[in-house]
Order: sequence, then structure tokens, then C-alpha cells
Amino acid sequence: MRASQFHISTLKEAPSDAEVISQKLMLRAGMIRKVAAGIYNYMPMGLRSIRKVEAIIREELNRAGAIELVMPLVQPAELWQETGRWDKMGPELLRLKDRHERDFALQPTSEEVVTDIARQELKSYRQLPKNFYQIQTKFRDERRPRFGVMRGREFVMKDGYSFDRDEAAAGVSYDRMYAAYGRIFERLGLTYRAVAADTGAIGGDRSHEFQVIADTGEDALVYCPTSDYAANIELAEAVSLLPGRVSPTAALEKAPTPGKERCEDVAGLLGLPLAQTVKSLVLATEETDEAGRVVKTTVWLLLVRGDHELNEVKAGKVEGLKAGFRFATEAEILEHFGCKPGYLGPIGLKKPVRIVADRTVADMGNFVCGANEADFHYTGVNWGRDLPEPELVADLRNVVEGDPSPDGKGVLAIQRGIEVGHVFYLGTKYSKAMNATFLAEDGKPRHFEMGCYGIGVTRIVGAAIEQNNDERGIIWPNAIAPFEVVLCPVGWSKSEAVRAEAEKLYEALLAAGIDVILDDRDERPGVMFADWELIGVPHRVTIGDRGLKDGVVEYQGRRDTEASKLAPADIAAHVIARCRG
Amino acid sequence: MRASQFHISTLKEAPSDAEVISQKLMLRAGMIRKVAAGIYNYMPMGLRSIRKVEAIIREELNRAGAIELVMPLVQPAELWQETGRWDKMGPELLRLKDRHERDFALQPTSEEVVTDIARQELKSYRQLPKNFYQIQTKFRDERRPRFGVMRGREFVMKDGYSFDRDEAAAGVSYDRMYAAYGRIFERLGLTYRAVAADTGAIGGDRSHEFQVIADTGEDALVYCPTSDYAANIELAEAVSLLPGRVSPTAALEKAPTPGKERCEDVAGLLGLPLAQTVKSLVLATEETDEAGRVVKTTVWLLLVRGDHELNEVKAGKVEGLKAGFRFATEAEILEHFGCKPGYLGPIGLKKPVRIVADRTVADMGNFVCGANEADFHYTGVNWGRDLPEPELVADLRNVVEGDPSPDGKGVLAIQRGIEVGHVFYLGTKYSKAMNATFLAEDGKPRHFEMGCYGIGVTRIVGAAIEQNNDERGIIWPNAIAPFEVVLCPVGWSKSEAVRAEAEKLYEALLAAGIDVILDDRDERPGVMFADWELIGVPHRVTIGDRGLKDGVVEYQGRRDTEASKLAPADIAAHVIARCRG
Repeated sequence: MRASQFHISTLKEAPSDAEVISQKLMLRAGMIRKVAAGIYNYMPMGLRSIRKVEAIIREELNRAGAIELVMPLVQPAELWQETGRWDKMGPELLRLKDRHERDFALQPTSEEVVTDIARQELKSYRQLPKNFYQIQTKFRDERRPRFGVMRGREFVMKDGYSFDRDEAAAGVSYDRMYAAYGRIFERLGLTYRAVAADTGAIGGDRSHEFQVIADTGEDALVYCPTSDYAANIELAEAVSLLPGRVSPTAALEKAPTPGKERCEDVAGLLGLPLAQTVKSLVLATEETDEAGRVVKTTVWLLLVRGDHELNEVKAGKVEGLKAGFRFATEAEILEHFGCKPGYLGPIGLKKPVRIVADRTVADMGNFVCGANEADFHYTGVNWGRDLPEPELVADLRNVVEGDPSPDGKGVLAIQRGIEVGHVFYLGTKYSKAMNATFLAEDGKPRHFEMGCYGIGVTRIVGAAIEQNNDERGIIWPNAIAPFEVVLCPVGWSKSEAVRAEAEKLYEALLAAGIDVILDDRDERPGVMFADWELIGVPHRVTIGDRGLKDGVVEYQGRRDTEASKLAPADIAAHVIARCRG
Repeated sequence: MRASQFHISTLKEAPSDAEVISQKLMLRAGMIRKVAAGIYNYMPMGLRSIRKVEAIIREELNRAGAIELVMPLVQPAELWQETGRWDKMGPELLRLKDRHERDFALQPTSEEVVTDIARQELKSYRQLPKNFYQIQTKFRDERRPRFGVMRGREFVMKDGYSFDRDEAAAGVSYDRMYAAYGRIFERLGLTYRAVAADTGAIGGDRSHEFQVIADTGEDALVYCPTSDYAANIELAEAVSLLPGRVSPTAALEKAPTPGKERCEDVAGLLGLPLAQTVKSLVLATEETDEAGRVVKTTVWLLLVRGDHELNEVKAGKVEGLKAGFRFATEAEILEHFGCKPGYLGPIGLKKPVRIVADRTVADMGNFVCGANEADFHYTGVNWGRDLPEPELVADLRNVVEGDPSPDGKGVLAIQRGIEVGHVFYLGTKYSKAMNATFLAEDGKPRHFEMGCYGIGVTRIVGAAIEQNNDERGIIWPNAIAPFEVVLCPVGWSKSEAVRAEAEKLYEALLAAGIDVILDDRDERPGVMFADWELIGVPHRVTIGDRGLKDGVVEYQGRRDTEASKLAPADIAAHVIARCRG
């Protein structure tokens, strides 16, 4: 490509509403332009990277036996009604009516349509396994679209769905996709981590997120540097930090803690370690009658150590809380604890409360907790002696750096990540809802065992930038750079020698299959360098009269601090080697 | 590709609502599956052809200097309001509201968004010309979607837009796209014709349709086999079929023609050639006041020869009819002609009527027309003698086969076509409406001169089938076949020799870059042949034990009536030559 034939449109400043670095850099580099909130034009520069991401995904999925198709963006309500998602999904499912007032939705994913395909097309176990995928525009009407392509409303996503005869076969399909995803992210040139993720109501252990590592990521990833363990913090198992129940050594005492509502403040006031305090969190669950009226409310007290955080996904797995919970109201708290929040604890309750202790809390002794009396805490609290053993013990907290790995093979570390892929075992959730069956080997109809597999194509582009940038701009991995190499001739219009050398190198690189752009805009070197460093092209060659007189041209990798000088005869081979290495 | 790894799903019968052959064959061949009216899944088999069409379009447009980007499917109302199309367009523009009740439309094309890009990105004449295109999902809420992908609601279209500094430069951009379209349709392997088309209010002669020739096409294409002349019948100029005004030789007479309202019946009754009769068509135009009330109605009588058809597009170009017309009501006809339709003519009017004669009619003499009296026609009518010369003479009729070519270089022929591409000079229609300007060389702002260029990607697939099919199924041009070659091993599971020979050929063809599918489904030959003839793969090789014993395998082109026998050692080269030739 010649720059004069392309559209290069860099900005000195990002628009003021751009929030994160990838969004700012994509706007400044002319990769995207905003059309409406969360809706972007993919400009020529941005589209090149998007297409390269798509091509890598497509190649690896095809290699793994997945089959590409395209399902429509505008999907009829009837299919969504079959699974109940038409009613269950919130306004992020954008619903619309056609000219005949029939209901449709814009696809955020396509479980319904693909399951409809399977029940029409896959009649026999002989046709299984099948894995269909599409790379297609999606729409999700986010309440607050933000971060450019990272959380847009219209975006490009790869969504794939596997159909299998039984759970064992579905596991094979799952593993195959897991492996393909690994190859995809390797080829994209991104530092990533596959982490176990929550499976929600489906259960089982077949849900993994593929996370691009970036300090700016929204997700916390837990891993063990000395083993294979890796999980989203939502899921990562927290073990007890104590080897067993601590024996009582201190007497139960009520200590005045006026105005100290947070564990940190109580510990500070009392001169005790924060790890000796216990935090009280009060939840409520409700039972309703057929008309939806609340007939019974149960109040729960969840206890985690003062320096730990409640993990709500884990709380939702406690027997009794699985059907859903909310935080208790102040009135409910007063009614059950006889005290306002800040001084709550498990001793001296006004009304029955179900108590769940985190594993570590259950092993603690001589601890500090609220006294259910304003401005007072108990110290020296011991289970069994000062209050009954906790009714339930469960993993309730987020792990923290340094926790023992649940596999016993080291200690845990945490890093931030951006979720760009997800593989998920669906079981028969959709096939049962839509009565999608095939004839099994025994001649009887059986529901498909399904898996779903997503990759956020446009999101990968944003995540790659979050992971790879500096003060000058983007630093692309070679595989998904809009161009691999830029040639910057200095004095394009003035020097015949520069033009000739640049053209020669341009042709040589093209012939080698390198995606090169020749900057023939006749701009000053400073303008060219700033543009291409902002755009983030990984390899740059500068050709100028001065260098040519000395028999050299300059090569600089985007991460290099200095240029290296090479003889014109050697430059093509050097650049090709750098691109391929 | 191996058939066992792909999804092959042929049907014996097309669904009963399928109307045209391409729709039936695409459904039967498993290329598409209906999701809702005019909304289809592009199944794996169909998607392969669609992607091949896209790739050819992309390559040729890039070669012609066009730059790919992607504009969103969901577009904000504000841009459409700027050009007035938000209000002007009918319900085929599908409007929707997001969760915040803001108005959006699904893109049927993207003139507004691309003009918005231009006014933000193209500041100077130095950045021109620019030509942006996208290959992207479109939505048009057709009142009556039909014909499968030929007139769907959701479809894939390439739409491109050029921006130029002046009309001369816009002409260069137009010509470049015209040439690129020619190369695209050549490479697609389709028999096509570029025809001049109506430019509507824009005017000028820069509008061409690219039509795939097919007897089932909706458009009539007029061309001169001995010259370059080609135009859509809407536009094709009809000259007078007479060398000049015919001299009066017959007397004006009133002939009883009871119940004969059609020219054919009148001519038959009177024993005169149909070409001696004149057909009367009555139109009306209205003038309205500021409140939109009709203040004046003018009635028009348009005259075409009895064997000719009125061309409404041409009628709309007559001075006085340009602002729009309608057919007159029966009341208006009675009021002005004193007679019901069927016996109308230009002689003896009750009230003033504006008379427009087609060019041929203006040259006729001694002709037959209605007498404005039920059950009577005049014969021997002559202009000037029996009635005044026509107020206006214009080209009003559709050309017919055998008409002289307007370029004087032969006679016209007509064939049917399916419009799959359109190049159109827009001028400043959109740039003025959206005030999209650049700084011209003189430092003053100037509106972009624009062109727009569309290709119906999914429609091409349908049109290719309309053009290329037989009683057994589709006959793909090589370039856009889902697979170029199919290998049919007879007795796959039984014969080691067959498997070995098939695998060897498969590998050889893959290595040569041939898109080959190996049918390893272990089906009987009859099933395989029926499937692949229906699917329309252009080249087939059958490998069986019986042939191998005689030292032969069979090659059959999809259009061949018989298979040819070749030695296994020669087959790869033969197939490769056939694919490339």
C-alpha cells in the first residue's frame, strides 16, 4: 500500500469523552470514528487490524473442524420466546418491530437461531459432532457504552456452538475449542491467560475465560506461578488461612469503639491486627407465594475476616442463597440485630439469623466483631465458647495475593485482565428449551449437548492496545498490525535516489509477502515518525539522502530505543527476518 | 475439505413458498435456510460462494484505489434527518429506538454516514479523490420480500462512495469504478451487460446498471448487437419508426367498433395492421397551494402506437410531467373526453387536454384512434388535417426488438437481466444537504462531487444460479463455486485402493491451491452424484475399484454430458487445467 492511496488521519488529541488508553489511541490513530454512543465506523486503518484478527480466528477454527456460517442480525422474536430469553433479557436485547409490526431483536449472540438450525439439520447421531461458528456484527444495547470498542453497542464477535451426542463427546468438543483458542491468542501475539470461570446454573467445571493481561483490565485473574492453577477471582477458591481452629486464649470483652464502624478503624483503635477482626455482612432472602407476594423473609449474616472481601458469586452458591439474595435493609438489620450497621456481629441477636462463616473465620479464635450495640465491639470472641459454632462454613471471600493455591502447589498471584474469549459448556439448556433432538444410536430422540464459544473480535483490537502501548502510541504485535512495516523516505519529492531506493525495498517486501506501506505523502520526517509511532507499525525503515551517501538506511523496531543502520543491500532481508521472528 | 468435516444438507424438494429457481436450488442445495420472511441463514455451503464473491470484489476495488472501511448497521436518525431521507423514505427504512428512546435506522445504504466521514476527515483538495467502500450487512424492510436472496430484507451489499474536487474528477472516479465493475463481473464468470440507466433528478449520463443476463430477470435490457449501445428499457431511446410524416391518403371516417376497447381488437375488427392504431393514455397533474390543497388539475393525453407500451419513466421527463403525475380518474376522463376509456382519442374533446404524441405517432398518417364516443373509432386520421399538430412530441414508449439503435449503428435486441450492480454519479446532492465541504485550491470551501457504487453480494449468488442451472441443479462458474472440485470415491469404506487413490489426488489438488472437497461420507454413487450436481460443483472425479482395475478414473465437468476416462497419473493435471482454463 502507498500512503497516498490510503486514508491516514491522525489526531493530536483524543476527543474529550474518550476514557481509556485504547479508545484514545484508536481515535488518535484514525482507526475508529464515533457515529453514536457505542457505535463506531471502523476506519480503513482500524479495519485492517480487525480483518487480521478475523483471519487468524477463522484459520484456527477451521483447522479445529468448526464450520463457518452466518446467522442474521435481525432475528424473529418467536425463537427468543421459545427459550424465554425474549422476556428474561433486559433492554440490552434491542427489540424492534418491522413494517408489519412483527417483533424482532438484534442478535447479541445466536443460541436460539443455531439451535433452530440444529433441530432442523442434524437428525442423527451420525451427523455429530458439529460445531458452527460465525464472525458477524452483534448488537448489545449497553446502558452505558464506554471504552470505545471495548464495550460498544455494535461490535464484531465470533460466536460458535457445538452439538454433541453426550456429555463426554461435548467435553471433547470443549477441549478442542479450548486448545484452538490457545492457538488463536498465541498467533495474535498477545500475552493472555485462560482462567476457570463461573458456570452459574449450568454447573460443572467447563467454563474458561481467555483474558488478555493488562493493568487496565476490569477482571482480576488469580493464578499460581508454580502450577497450572488459574481462575477468575469470581471463582478462585479461597482456602482457610489458618491451619485449624485457633484455641481460646483471651476472655470475651466488650470494648468501646465510638464512631469506628470499619474493621480497619476498630483494629487501629484497639491496637490489634486487622486479621483479628471479623466483618459482618447482612443479606436477605425471600419466599413468595404464587402471586409473587413475599410471604417470608430470612436474614443472613455472612462473616469474612476484616481484611477480606465478600465474593458475591460465591455467596450465591451457599445452600439457601442460590435462588437469589439481596442486601438487607436498615430496618431489617435493626429488627434482627437491634443495632445499626457498623457494630454488627453474631452475638446477642434479637431475632434468628442464619450465620455463614467464611472458612478462615470459622478457624479464627480470640477475634473481634461488632457487639450489636452502637459504638461497641467484642474482643476475644471464640466459637463454641461465646457463641454457637457457625451454622454454615463456606468459601465466601475473594482470594488475595499470597493465599495458598487451592491445588496446594504454591501461593497465588493476581493480575488484571480483559476478557476477550469465553468457552462454555451449555449442556442441554437450549436444546431442551427448544426441544432440539437427534436420533441417538438406540433410535431414540435425545437432546443435543451443547457448548458455546465466543471471541470479541473488535474487543481484541482494543485489548491488544491496552496491553501494548507507550507514550508515543500503539505498539502492535506483528500479526495484527494494520501494516507490518512502514517505509519513510525523507525528501520523497526532492530526491530521485531516495525514491528509487524506497521503491526497490517496497517491491522486495511486497514480493516477500510483507504487509508494507510506503509513506509517499512527502511529509517531514517528524510528521511521518509521529504518525507511524502513534499508529504503532512494528517496523520502520527510514531512507534519506544523507544516509544513502554513507551507504546506509535506518531500521527501527517500534520498541527499539535507537535505530540501527544497515546497508541498503541488507535491509530487505533484515526486515523480513524481523517480521517473521 | 472433507465432506465428513463439513455440513452437507440437501433437500429433495424445495419448501413450497420458494418462487424462483435460484431460491429453490439454494434451499435444496443447503446454501440458505429461512429464518423469517426475507431473512436467511447463510449456511456453510452458501457462505463459501458469498465469500468468494466478496473476495473478488475486494481485490478489484482495492486495485482500483478504493479503500475499505465498515460503517455501522445501526445508524442514528440525526444524520438521516440532515438529508431529509428520515422523513422521505418509506417503511423500507427500518426505524427503531434504543433503550433511551433515541431514534436509529438500520442501514439500507450509507450515504449519510459516509458524507459525515468526508466532512470530518477530508479537509483539503489535496486529500482528493477518495473512494470509500464497505462490504456489510444491509437491511431493507421490503413490503414483500421474495425470491430468496434476490430480494431479501437482510442482505450483504458492497456500497462505495467517491469524493472528488469537481465534476471532471468525479467523472474519472466514475469511469474507474465502471471499469472495475467490468473486471469484477468478468472474474465472477457471469454473462453480464452494463447498461445505461435512468439518472432521475440528478441528470447527466452517468448511471449504469450491471445486469446479469437471465431469462428470469426482472429488467429488460436493450442493446445493439452491432454497436456498444446498451441501456435499461426504462432509459433506452426509441426513435420514430417512420422516415417522416406519412401523407394523408385516406379520408377521416367514424367506424363502429362495438365492445372493442383494445387496439388489438379494433385492428382485428377493421382488418388493419395494429401498427396503424394509436393508443390513448390519460394522465393528470395537480397544482397545490401552500396548505397542500389541489388548486388546479391538468389532464394529459399521451399517444403511443397500438403495438407500443407507454414508458412511465420517459413520461416523467416530459416538460410539465416532471414534478409527478398520476393516471386520470374515470370522472376526469368523462369530464374531458365525454366518453369512457376504451374509445378515447385526440379528436372532439369536451375540455382542453394537453396532448403529447410519441415520436412514431407524430409521424403517422391515416391512423386509427378512439372517437370519444362509446363503441366508435376514427380511421384515416391525419395530423394537421383532422386535428391540430400535437402540442408536444416526445419519446414516450418502450423500445421493441428490431427498433433502430439510437446510435444509428444497427437494430436493437432485448434480453432480460438481473440488476446486481449500479454505478451512479450523485453530484452534490448529499454534500450540499449535509454541508460537506473541503478547501479547494483557491482556499474556498467547496462541496464534494460524489458518486455511489453498489454491488449486491448475496444477490449475485442468486443471479449466478438464475443464469446457470439445469434440471439437475446449479452449475457454478468456477470462481464462485462453493468448491471447485469434488472427489467421489465409490466404496470409501470398503476399498483401500480407492481410498489411497482419492487421498493422493486430494493432496495433489490441495497442493495446487484447488478448492477441493473429498466426499468421504461413504454414500452410494447415486447419492453423491445427485448431491454434487444439485450443489453444482463444476468438476467431479469419480474413483472406483472397477475403474482402477482398468487403470482409469472418471472426470466429468458439470456441463459435460459424459464422463471422460483418464489414467490416475494424469488426472490431477487434467483437473487443474480445467479449473484454471
